[in-house]
Amino acid sequence: MYKYSHGGNAVFESGKENILDLSASINPLGMPENVINAVAREIPNCTHYPDSSSAELRNKIAEFENVKPEMILCGNGASDIIFRLPRAAQAGKIMITAPTFSDYERSARSFGAKVVLYPLSEGSGFMLDDGFLRAVRTERPDLIYICNPNNPTGKLTDIAFVSQLAGCCYEIGALLVLDECFLGFVQQSEMYTGKALLDKFSNLVILKAFTKLFALPGIRLGYAICRDRKLIESLYFHGADWSVSNLAQAAGMAALDGAEDMIKRTAAYVAAERLKIENELVHLGICVYKSQANYVFIRNPYDFDLFHELDKKGIRIRSCHNFHNLDSRYCRIAVSTAEINLKLLSAVGEIIISLVNPSLP
Amino acid sequence: MYKYSHGGNAVFESGKENILDLSASINPLGMPENVINAVAREIPNCTHYPDSSSAELRNKIAEFENVKPEMILCGNGASDIIFRLPRAAQAGKIMITAPTFSDYERSARSFGAKVVLYPLSEGSGFMLDDGFLRAVRTERPDLIYICNPNNPTGKLTDIAFVSQLAGCCYEIGALLVLDECFLGFVQQSEMYTGKALLDKFSNLVILKAFTKLFALPGIRLGYAICRDRKLIESLYFHGADWSVSNLAQAAGMAALDGAEDMIKRTAAYVAAERLKIENELVHLGICVYKSQANYVFIRNPYDFDLFHELDKKGIRIRSCHNFHNLDSRYCRIAVSTAEINLKLLSAVGEIIISLVNPSLP
Repeated sequence: MYKYSHGGNAVFESGKENILDLSASINPLGMPENVINAVAREIPNCTHYPDSSSAELRNKIAEFENVKPEMILCGNGASDIIFRLPRAAQAGKIMITAPTFSDYERSARSFGAKVVLYPLSEGSGFMLDDGFLRAVRTERPDLIYICNPNNPTGKLTDIAFVSQLAGCCYEIGALLVLDECFLGFVQQSEMYTGKALLDKFSNLVILKAFTKLFALPGIRLGYAICRDRKLIESLYFHGADWSVSNLAQAAGMAALDGAEDMIKRTAAYVAAERLKIENELVHLGICVYKSQANYVFIRNPYDFDLFHELDKKGIRIRSCHNFHNLDSRYCRIAVSTAEINLKLLSAVGEIIISLVNPSLP
Repeated sequence: MYKYSHGGNAVFESGKENILDLSASINPLGMPENVINAVAREIPNCTHYPDSSSAELRNKIAEFENVKPEMILCGNGASDIIFRLPRAAQAGKIMITAPTFSDYERSARSFGAKVVLYPLSEGSGFMLDDGFLRAVRTERPDLIYICNPNNPTGKLTDIAFVSQLAGCCYEIGALLVLDECFLGFVQQSEMYTGKALLDKFSNLVILKAFTKLFALPGIRLGYAICRDRKLIESLYFHGADWSVSNLAQAAGMAALDGAEDMIKRTAAYVAAERLKIENELVHLGICVYKSQANYVFIRNPYDFDLFHELDKKGIRIRSCHNFHNLDSRYCRIAVSTAEINLKLLSAVGEIIISLVNPSLP
């Protein structure tokens, strides 16, 4: 029944301490020094329960996001909030794209909702199109998840489409959840965020995470932004009161100090490295679907299994065999540091030379 | 709809940094030094996702509890597991005592279960009796929570009764959840734990927490023990994969080093201090219901509101106004350090002298 289905657990799965884990997409610039210090300073305070409303942290996030603090709910990672959403919205029918992040479907099934999958095809570049709007009007779901940029494809949905979709959801009484957990890695992300739509659409929820952007997945911190106070209250009700630890709250507070500069540097670094990886993979004959996130999304056209071959060389990437509409030829590879990215590329090169094409340069 | 309903948030509610918080019952001996160090050492590793199965920690807990690792599920505090239980067991009807810990009812309502309350009366010393077994057979619930010792009364249910109840639950196909989160504070707790029943009853779940016993509520760590592998799998399925942070896993590992000695010292300290508090409160004319946990449970017979009067003096206790079958005359007060307990007692004495009986010594 239950099987772990994500990346990011290469060390535990392989038992190898030194495996290079590119199966989870974490900021290659690492956890900011001031976050490490703030968490260390908070440890002795952990003899007290955390503030269940994360009030101080929400104030700081509100300032950062330019929204009101009462529009924010913090969670033990975005996944904590994803598990609350179907219950909070009492969503009997949930629509998701295929492929996308698997927790949308799992949390829907945990609630007992009917799941409607909308296939994203290679033919349309894995992009959402008008067919999706038509399907929404036909299916009339209670809740729709859009991951932007999408996981694992790295494809961005433009804001005009999101706005149209939010309007369409509003008409049919559906909640639209826009997962922007990877949007911080995108250059000029302000052109893509749905934040400006929050004022207009009370049926819009935006999900964000500190986890990936500030490289603290082991501390856990995510948040939702929404104008509908009743939904926020309901999200509180449908989960444990102390889900956000003192340490996570301290980490979030510290991360937001200097966050803008950090995010800008990250997005620029990631864009340059991603381009380097994508270009080299194309050169090696790999089919690359241009991503705008901090991972690359590929299809291996050769006969060998890239995941297994890289694994033998101590590099773990994310095989997409357990995403809907994909199979083991498709892989997601995190954009890491320049040094590690080079290791990845030379490993892929070696594999292709040894198994397919000895004449490659 | 949602209102925070527990103790432990005196500082956030009052805005006073120096308030003495006796509204949550945390080990007065504090967080072990080696836990603080282990958590600090783990911070840099938090750029990786936590092991979603907490394998290493479960091995260590298994050794400590003398059960198999696969019988254990770790959670972001016991409350994380409490919110998963109704869904994991698909429990349409849930029976709880009144009063008891409020999250059992809230998580039941979050799942949409029917809640059956079984009143514990002052007349029977707030103890479970044969009437409860009869009610279980009549109501035929799918899930029953027993908090042992109970919160907020501090009353222990003896193991013979628990065994009878487990058998009765087995007959009707109900899951019995035995919450032993406060049992570590009880002297000779091995006489009261339901652990020996796990082999016999696959329908028994025992809940335990590091939170209170090792004074780390701000880090969050609890676990369930159960022989039914399907239920454990279902508990994994019905919650987020990374709910137990790297820091919590490191804290738990460290806490178990030397845990037996620490628990012995704690139980002895708490018993002596609790006796001191209870005796003095009796002397002051307060109605004391002998507790066996790390808190005292009282009814204030005087006309003044003890919670508010102590609050004015910078001491926060837990008013039991929002527990079923209790009202604001009933209070739960944590057993703290000798020094703080004396402060509490002299504050109560001062209040009674000034408001009721100026002739008290």
